[in-house]
Amino acid sequence: MVQPLNTLSATEIVALTLNGTVNCETLARECLARVAAREPVVKAWAFIDLDQVLREAKALDSRANRGPLFGVPVGVKDIIETADMPTQMGSPIYRGYRTLSDAGCVAQLRAAGALIVGKTVTCEFAGPAANVTTNPHNAARTPGGSSSGSAAAVADFMVPFGFGTQTGGSVQRPASYCGIVGYKPTFGLINRQGVKPAAESLDTMGLMVRTVEDAALFMQVLTNSAKVQWLPADAPIRIGLCRTYAWKDADEATRNAVENAARRLEKVGFSVCDVALPPPCEGLPRTREIINDYERARGMAWEWNTHADKITDALGKSIRNGLVIPRAQYIEALEQVALCRHRVAALFTDVDVLLTPAADGEAPLGLAHTGHHRFQSIWTQLRTPTVTLPTDAGPSGMPVGIQLVGAHFADDRLLAIAQRVFALLGQGPRIEL
Amino acid sequence: MVQPLNTLSATEIVALTLNGTVNCETLARECLARVAAREPVVKAWAFIDLDQVLREAKALDSRANRGPLFGVPVGVKDIIETADMPTQMGSPIYRGYRTLSDAGCVAQLRAAGALIVGKTVTCEFAGPAANVTTNPHNAARTPGGSSSGSAAAVADFMVPFGFGTQTGGSVQRPASYCGIVGYKPTFGLINRQGVKPAAESLDTMGLMVRTVEDAALFMQVLTNSAKVQWLPADAPIRIGLCRTYAWKDADEATRNAVENAARRLEKVGFSVCDVALPPPCEGLPRTREIINDYERARGMAWEWNTHADKITDALGKSIRNGLVIPRAQYIEALEQVALCRHRVAALFTDVDVLLTPAADGEAPLGLAHTGHHRFQSIWTQLRTPTVTLPTDAGPSGMPVGIQLVGAHFADDRLLAIAQRVFALLGQGPRIEL
Repeated sequence: MVQPLNTLSATEIVALTLNGTVNCETLARECLARVAAREPVVKAWAFIDLDQVLREAKALDSRANRGPLFGVPVGVKDIIETADMPTQMGSPIYRGYRTLSDAGCVAQLRAAGALIVGKTVTCEFAGPAANVTTNPHNAARTPGGSSSGSAAAVADFMVPFGFGTQTGGSVQRPASYCGIVGYKPTFGLINRQGVKPAAESLDTMGLMVRTVEDAALFMQVLTNSAKVQWLPADAPIRIGLCRTYAWKDADEATRNAVENAARRLEKVGFSVCDVALPPPCEGLPRTREIINDYERARGMAWEWNTHADKITDALGKSIRNGLVIPRAQYIEALEQVALCRHRVAALFTDVDVLLTPAADGEAPLGLAHTGHHRFQSIWTQLRTPTVTLPTDAGPSGMPVGIQLVGAHFADDRLLAIAQRVFALLGQGPRIEL
Repeated sequence: MVQPLNTLSATEIVALTLNGTVNCETLARECLARVAAREPVVKAWAFIDLDQVLREAKALDSRANRGPLFGVPVGVKDIIETADMPTQMGSPIYRGYRTLSDAGCVAQLRAAGALIVGKTVTCEFAGPAANVTTNPHNAARTPGGSSSGSAAAVADFMVPFGFGTQTGGSVQRPASYCGIVGYKPTFGLINRQGVKPAAESLDTMGLMVRTVEDAALFMQVLTNSAKVQWLPADAPIRIGLCRTYAWKDADEATRNAVENAARRLEKVGFSVCDVALPPPCEGLPRTREIINDYERARGMAWEWNTHADKITDALGKSIRNGLVIPRAQYIEALEQVALCRHRVAALFTDVDVLLTPAADGEAPLGLAHTGHHRFQSIWTQLRTPTVTLPTDAGPSGMPVGIQLVGAHFADDRLLAIAQRVFALLGQGPRIEL
C-alpha cells in the first residue's frame, strides 16, 4: 500500500516533487482531503480557501524555478502576516484584516517553493485565552496554545509544517500535547518581521513538524545554513537530566517520560548526569510575568485603548498588570534573566544537551484552558534552542513529550542529538488514519 | 514679546495646556502655520492633513481626561504605523498604505494626550537611500537620515517632538546635522510593535527633541518611570573622552567640538580621562554590515521577492549581500558584538558617561547622501543609551553635535548628566525665526 501523500514529511515530499514523481497539485489535493475530512472536529484553520490553495499548487507546478521546499504544504499561525490571506490574530478586533505584505519568514518559504495552505488558529494575540481548536487525538482535550492550529494541523497530517511562535510556551506545549516535534531555535535566529509581537524580548519563532529532519530542512532555508551533520550511532553524547524547580508540578506521565528517557539513553551508551538550574533561575516564573506583561501592555496599547471591550479577561489582566509595572522593576527582571542566561551557558561545558520536561503531562480535558507554560517559559527566557520530542504516552493514551535543550546558538548540534534520541526512543501515540 | 508657541518645548507646552493657559487648538494652529511657511523648502512631512490636525486638537480640548503630554504636537517617522494616516515607509511599494492600528508607541502618546501631527519623511525603509527632506539650516545640505523628517521638523520648530528609529545612525546623525537633541535609549526600552523592522537585533526607537528635559518627559510616559532627578551644579561627574577607532575620519569641526567640550567641562570641575574602546570593538564596522544585511534580507523578503524593481540600488545592495551571508557568519558577528558589550560595560565603573563624536562633522552639501553612520552605529550595536547634544558650529555655520553615552540601562543617569552638560556648553546654531 502506498503511503498517503499527506502523511509524508517535508523531506520526503521534496524528494518526490523535485524529481517530478509527484506534482504539487496531487499532493495539495491529498492534504486538502484530509483537511476536509477532519477540520469539522479539529478546527485547526482560521482561514483556508481550498480553491486558492489548488490554484497556487498548479502555479507551482508550472514554475520553472523550483526551490528546496518545492510543493511543501505549510500552515501559518494567524498572527503572521500573509499578503493573500487575512491575518486575524485570533481576535475580533482584526476580523477580516488584510495586510499588504507577507511576513519575512512567509516570503522566504514561498520563495523556496512552499505552498501556503492557510492560516492556523492562534489564541488571541498569541496569549493565554483558549481558541476553538481541539486536540486531534481527542477532541475533548486542549491542543495547547497559543500555536494551537499549527500543532493540530501537523499532528493530524493536514500539513507537514506549521509556523508557531513562543513567548511563554506556545510552541513546546502544543507540540507535546499534540504529539509532534516542536523546535524553538535560539532567540532571534528566525526573522520576526511581520509577526505580531506579544512581548518582543521573548517572542521566538518556532517550527512545528513531525520529524527532526524537517526542522533542519526549514532552518537551512530560513537561515542560510549548511546541512545538519547527523550523528553516527556511536557518537558520544552527554545528557544533563534537568528536572528544574518545577518538577513537583509535573504529572507522573511527564516524570516517567523524562526519567525513562534518561535510563534508556544511558543504556545505549549516552552519558547522563543530573544538572540543576543555577540560581537565580528559581525566579524565572516571576521575571516572565513582569517582562511579558510590561511588554504586552506597551505593544498592545492601541488595542487596549480603543477596543478593550473585545479583549478577553485573561489577556486584559496581563495588560492591566503591565501598565502599572515601573520601568525599574522591568529592568531588574531583565537583568536577573541575563544573569540566569550567563550561568546556564556554563552548564553546557559538561553536557551537550539538557533533558527536561516538555509540559506538565498529557493534554488536560476541556477546551477552556491551554495548559501552563512553566516547563517551556524557562527556555524562552533563557533564549536557548529547544526541541520537544513526542516520545511517550500518558495514562489516557495521549501524547507526552520530552524536551531537549541546547546551548545558545548550538542549534545544529541540538538537532543532530534530537534526531538520534528520537530514533532511539521512538514515537508515542500517533493519530490513526 | 511673547514667545511663539511653536518654539516651546514639550515641557513648556504642558505647563500651559494642563492649566488651561493655552488650548490645544491655538497651539496646533501656530505649529501648522510654521509648517505651512516652511514645508515647501524643508519637506519634512510624508503626510500631513491640516484639517485633520485641527479636528484632533479640538477633540483634545473637549476631552475631560488630560494626560501628561496634553496637546503636545508630535511627528511620527513614516515606518511607524498610524491608524488614521498612511504609513508609506518612504517607498513606492507602500504608497497610500494604511494599517488598522497605531504602533504601540503612538497609541501610548495618544493616550497621554499628545497630538499626532503627521508622518515625517523617512529614508526608504529606514535605510541608506536619501529622501526629499532638506536641512532646515541650509536647504542645500542633507538633514541626515534615515529619520530625516523628524529631525528637520523638530529643528525647524514645526513640532517639539519626533519619533525616530536607529539601526545604524538614523537618530544621532540627523540630530547632529540638524542641531537638535537626539536620544537613543537602551535597546528595547521603547516598544517597537508596529514599527517596520530594518534589522531587528539593532533597531532602536529614538526621541528627537530640542531639550534633554523633553526626552526625559517622553520616556516617563513611554516606560512608566519616575521623574529624572536633575543634578545639582556641584555634582561630581566623571567623563571618559572616547575618540573611538574612527577618530581619523572625523572632520576638524567634530574633533574640536568633542575636545573643547572635554576642556570646558574639566574647567568647571568634571573629571575627564581618556578612554579607549576595548578590542574587538575595532571590528564593529564589519559586524554591523553582516548583522544589518543578514537581517535586512530576511525581514524584507516579501518586498525583495515581489517588488525588487521598486527598491533602490543602495538598499538592494544590502539585501543581496545579506542573502548570501551564511548563518554561521551571522552568529559569529553577533557573538563578537556581545563580547564588545561585555567589555564596554566595564568602562562604566570608572566613568559615568563617555564623550564621543556624534557625526563626522557638519551636514555635507548635497541631498544625494545622508552621511556615514560610523560614529553612531558603534553605540547602536553596543545597545547603550546615547544623547546627541547640538553644542557646536562647523566652518559653514552648520550645527555640529557631541555625543554622550551611558551604561546599559543607566538612561536616567545619562539624561541627568546630558542636561547639565547642555546647560554648561550651550546650544550651537539655531534656525532663525
